[in-house]
Amino acid sequence: MTTTPSLDRLLAPRSVAVIGASDDPARIGGRPIASMLRLGYAGRILPVNPNRATVQGLTAYPSVDALPEVPDVAIVAVPAPQVLATVTALAQRGVPGAILFSAGFAEVGGEGVAMQAELVAAARQGGMRLLGPNSLGLVNLQTGFVGSFSSFATMAGVRPGRVGIVSQSGAYGSHLVATAMEAGVYPSNIVMTGNEADLTLGDIVRLMVADPNTDVIALYSEGINDGNGLVEALQAARAARKPVVMMKVGRSEVGGAAARSHTASIAGDDAVVDAVLEELGVVRARTTEEMLDIVRLATRGVFPQNNTLGVITVSGGAGVIVSDAAEDLGLPMPEMPAAAQQRMLEMLPICAPRNPVDTTAQFINDPSLITPFTEAMLLEGGYTSVLGFFSYAGSTPEVAPLLRGQLSKVRERFPDRLYVLVLRGPRDVLDSYEAAGFTVFEDPNRAVTAIAAMGRFGKAFAGRTLAPAPEVGAVALPAQTPTEAQAKRLLADAGIPSAPERACAEVEAAVAAAREIGFPVVMKILSPDILHKSEIGGVLLNVRDEQAVRAGFATLLDRARTAAPTARIEGVLVARQLSGGVECIMGIQRDPTFGPVAMFGLGGVFVEILKDVVFHRCPFGEDVAEEMIRSIKGAPLLLGARGRPVADVAALAKTLSRLSSFAVAAGPRLQSIDLNPVIAMPEGQGAYAVDAVIDLE
Amino acid sequence: MTTTPSLDRLLAPRSVAVIGASDDPARIGGRPIASMLRLGYAGRILPVNPNRATVQGLTAYPSVDALPEVPDVAIVAVPAPQVLATVTALAQRGVPGAILFSAGFAEVGGEGVAMQAELVAAARQGGMRLLGPNSLGLVNLQTGFVGSFSSFATMAGVRPGRVGIVSQSGAYGSHLVATAMEAGVYPSNIVMTGNEADLTLGDIVRLMVADPNTDVIALYSEGINDGNGLVEALQAARAARKPVVMMKVGRSEVGGAAARSHTASIAGDDAVVDAVLEELGVVRARTTEEMLDIVRLATRGVFPQNNTLGVITVSGGAGVIVSDAAEDLGLPMPEMPAAAQQRMLEMLPICAPRNPVDTTAQFINDPSLITPFTEAMLLEGGYTSVLGFFSYAGSTPEVAPLLRGQLSKVRERFPDRLYVLVLRGPRDVLDSYEAAGFTVFEDPNRAVTAIAAMGRFGKAFAGRTLAPAPEVGAVALPAQTPTEAQAKRLLADAGIPSAPERACAEVEAAVAAAREIGFPVVMKILSPDILHKSEIGGVLLNVRDEQAVRAGFATLLDRARTAAPTARIEGVLVARQLSGGVECIMGIQRDPTFGPVAMFGLGGVFVEILKDVVFHRCPFGEDVAEEMIRSIKGAPLLLGARGRPVADVAALAKTLSRLSSFAVAAGPRLQSIDLNPVIAMPEGQGAYAVDAVIDLE
Repeated sequence: MTTTPSLDRLLAPRSVAVIGASDDPARIGGRPIASMLRLGYAGRILPVNPNRATVQGLTAYPSVDALPEVPDVAIVAVPAPQVLATVTALAQRGVPGAILFSAGFAEVGGEGVAMQAELVAAARQGGMRLLGPNSLGLVNLQTGFVGSFSSFATMAGVRPGRVGIVSQSGAYGSHLVATAMEAGVYPSNIVMTGNEADLTLGDIVRLMVADPNTDVIALYSEGINDGNGLVEALQAARAARKPVVMMKVGRSEVGGAAARSHTASIAGDDAVVDAVLEELGVVRARTTEEMLDIVRLATRGVFPQNNTLGVITVSGGAGVIVSDAAEDLGLPMPEMPAAAQQRMLEMLPICAPRNPVDTTAQFINDPSLITPFTEAMLLEGGYTSVLGFFSYAGSTPEVAPLLRGQLSKVRERFPDRLYVLVLRGPRDVLDSYEAAGFTVFEDPNRAVTAIAAMGRFGKAFAGRTLAPAPEVGAVALPAQTPTEAQAKRLLADAGIPSAPERACAEVEAAVAAAREIGFPVVMKILSPDILHKSEIGGVLLNVRDEQAVRAGFATLLDRARTAAPTARIEGVLVARQLSGGVECIMGIQRDPTFGPVAMFGLGGVFVEILKDVVFHRCPFGEDVAEEMIRSIKGAPLLLGARGRPVADVAALAKTLSRLSSFAVAAGPRLQSIDLNPVIAMPEGQGAYAVDAVIDLE
Repeated sequence: MTTTPSLDRLLAPRSVAVIGASDDPARIGGRPIASMLRLGYAGRILPVNPNRATVQGLTAYPSVDALPEVPDVAIVAVPAPQVLATVTALAQRGVPGAILFSAGFAEVGGEGVAMQAELVAAARQGGMRLLGPNSLGLVNLQTGFVGSFSSFATMAGVRPGRVGIVSQSGAYGSHLVATAMEAGVYPSNIVMTGNEADLTLGDIVRLMVADPNTDVIALYSEGINDGNGLVEALQAARAARKPVVMMKVGRSEVGGAAARSHTASIAGDDAVVDAVLEELGVVRARTTEEMLDIVRLATRGVFPQNNTLGVITVSGGAGVIVSDAAEDLGLPMPEMPAAAQQRMLEMLPICAPRNPVDTTAQFINDPSLITPFTEAMLLEGGYTSVLGFFSYAGSTPEVAPLLRGQLSKVRERFPDRLYVLVLRGPRDVLDSYEAAGFTVFEDPNRAVTAIAAMGRFGKAFAGRTLAPAPEVGAVALPAQTPTEAQAKRLLADAGIPSAPERACAEVEAAVAAAREIGFPVVMKILSPDILHKSEIGGVLLNVRDEQAVRAGFATLLDRARTAAPTARIEGVLVARQLSGGVECIMGIQRDPTFGPVAMFGLGGVFVEILKDVVFHRCPFGEDVAEEMIRSIKGAPLLLGARGRPVADVAALAKTLSRLSSFAVAAGPRLQSIDLNPVIAMPEGQGAYAVDAVIDLE
């Protein structure tokens, strides 16, 4: 969904009508007004209440029609039965956007679903956009606009910051906001999307991308209603260098993908969400704490493209903890250059100068060492991120300001680096470090997780020129589910090769085909009604001579008739038996959220038992395809591990990227494709689909 | 190392001498005395200082010899050069234990190592035990005994609790203690073991097990110096139902295991640490926060044997987060019984009653619902653990005490369950919940992790009767590294079967053997000097007839002479080619810390590329062996996945457990055993080692 002009003012309206406005600041219809008055909202507030001349001291209007102007936003705080009439009136007046608090719509099922559809229809008639229903609304702390009955706009400790917080859920969203502010993460805007009858996460992300007061975006979601809209919004955020951290819960959910497809059942939809977020440079947080840690550090605006971590510590143990965590996260910790190590040892003979640089507690006796040590790390070690573990130095009144001064000198000289400290001490001391540009964590593992995330943003923001997805031309899908031979022809037209093969209706044709292709051959039953042939014994391997072809032909027909008496049998497929290759599997599934998604894995036990597969949204070029292939755990099997021949990864990548283009070109009727197996021959000898199943709607 | 009587008083001495006592309470020799005076230590403090008649108001003695009594413990706070003389004097006086602060010993290498050895020798002469050197010492907050120069005995907020904290590192240990107290985890004792010249982690754990003031033990370690001592101490902790949480850092370290052994190189020592801690019912924490979360909940003393989690929440999203986390951790969340769900719906039609039970924010309007809902969960759902997500209900002055009262009624009725809340609010409100028996977390994921850990303790404490390790009789290892045939004979004597085979010095003997065993056969070069035959092409598979045996014999001899010209060649081994089985791998490695450790995995790519292996300390019975086999990711391959034959897992387990007994019986000369592959035949047909390498010191 693209941003329409009418949406621009939703976060920052110049005027706002409150329908169902209450004089009682504790009531739902009174809270937004009370909050805006308290926060000093500078726009015009227009209460609508048929029974009062004023509301909380403001002139009230008896109806929507009686409003003296068309407000940028309307807050609808009326009971569910009155919502439709109100929305209709607002849309007719040309109000661009409305916020619907009322519950009792799609979330209760049944009639509520229909009522919600009516709301949307009524709004669309006037080109009005809706937030909600069943939404806690939105708060813009930077302007004081409160389109919410939640109390967090006025809770203790609230202050405007630079983080846009978006949540579907009002209940968890409120918990998140309270937790965020306690953790020192201050919002620019808070938006709860509720039922998302109209505006979805993606629309709100786009508003945050456009909002000059928002630098970092935190997303909490229990389900994604508009996958493409979210993808486009996240691409816009990346282009604007606004980091997005997303907590998508419900990992244990089983996806609604087609049960007929084999590849679809291999991994849940959650793996697809992982792949899409990774592709878009979004960091997915598993816990609320992790999200807030990463968001907090991201507000520093330092996103190293090739992140490396230098650690200076007063505890060897902390250095080990950090090294373990960095290794787990793939964050490099290169050694200090030898000459610099030598100089450090001259300054402090008991130090360990490699990286982590362990100064021992000696620095407490001589904090002046911190500047030369840290400078050497930045200048000579060249680290983009520095983690200082100074334990409870923050609690020592003689040490804390000295340390901060020493570190500040370094930061002034190298302002483009990321500075993170693990430090304990009173809140005001830690705040003084934060104010000086050092983000303070209590736990070293959490600090490393956040630092690693900054590198992931840096890599995403650096951008890279990707190879274009291959052109495969138009795909003319048949009216019905294609046979294997038809499927292979369709794929061959798109440049996706299969092993040489012939469809043979008669036994003698099969013998001739086998002679032409060369023994040994593979024989398979040919029927549009039998999708997974091996399950009925419909595939014969290693058929070695003409006699065996004749026997095999009879066997296959017999098995097919026994297993599927009503199936249309078109004969037998005779194909080259590929040997010396590595069995792979490729597939497409139409993800209900993100559309066609490609899958790659090694065949057999790797896919079936170990779920060692990788996903990517379609389409993509050969470079992405090759990265996918190299990313699976079993990749060494393709890359020559332990004396194996190196497989033709380039051919695999070409096939996989063409498959991704094919999936898009085939359009929405395509439900899934299984190429199982694809044989990757040794380098230079290609990769061939041996079986192909295309499943249509 | 077993606890000697002299050690009993180390944590709680009746009298303590301070050697190098200082009148200045800020100096290292003055701090312990000042701290003890401040904490009201009731024992006798005996300062030793040759230059003063009194120290901090206490009578001082000029020397160890001049002490009026033999103290239970001596604190040695003298410079490194004087430590040896002091230790010697203390040992001669018969002091049972000494705490050595001084640094400059083994940790600096070189001369320090020798000096440390002298200290130990001097102490042993008098039967004295040493804590340290290079130790921050120990603090018993329950008795006020401070054998430490650290400041944390007297820091703000310190108070005695029920958690024994043990750390090797003084620097990280101090950070840990400060972090613990801020997190509401209060120590009974704090012990920093330093260089562990004598007393090791295990010795200290034993003291904590015996200490009536310690309920829970938190261990931080960078390396384990006495594996067997630690194992015995952890067994004692389990027997005493004292949960142990251990943070063992340095996961990225490469172990010092023998490089010659193939199995040893498969996984680092860290996987062995994991396996040993799992075996002993110790929960390994990956981060400091995780350790403290688990320890804090463990002080409740509720360890459900078959843990199940019931969740009551005011936010559907929080319920999803908790469900995801529980699934990841294998913590079951069974559904509420249908009848109970029906009753809940009658009480609150908008609730979601399955589990998580989502009451929505409605409970804020009517907190009296909490009691019947929670009672239904405990009574009818039967959950052993309850997690209540009440978000910031703690911040609402009208709700917080009501909610606590409602929950307390339930807790009184079911005092044996585990109660955990996720709740935000002012510190004093949260403290009131803690005082009422509810452990409060801010983050739902952290809460679930801690709850799952209680179940792991419960399972460990419940105990189980394990099958005894098999008796394999005495193992007579040869003087030199055995040949494959010798190795197999040794193993066969212990009941570990190999495939039928013959060692053949001459080509015609090989032909005769192949005829007798039956074609096809496997042929392997036979040499005590060639350990990994396949690497030189010394193994021929699928040898199908007599002619091929003759050719193979020549090929193998030729390859062996080319690859290893000086190797002694004893001929060729002819063995049955086992087909239709699953390739497995079994091995033994002598772990430098824990002695012989058995490994099991599937063969080929599973071990080589996926590291899909499992470890266990030797020896163990068939039940443990079978659990190991079933625990690997690839286990479905043995258990009949996707139409495969079910493998003879019982035979595999028998072989694996016998191998574990063999490893122990073989004694310390045994460095490693590789059985690669072991072929698991279909059920009832046994499992056979096809190759065997035994490596001796």
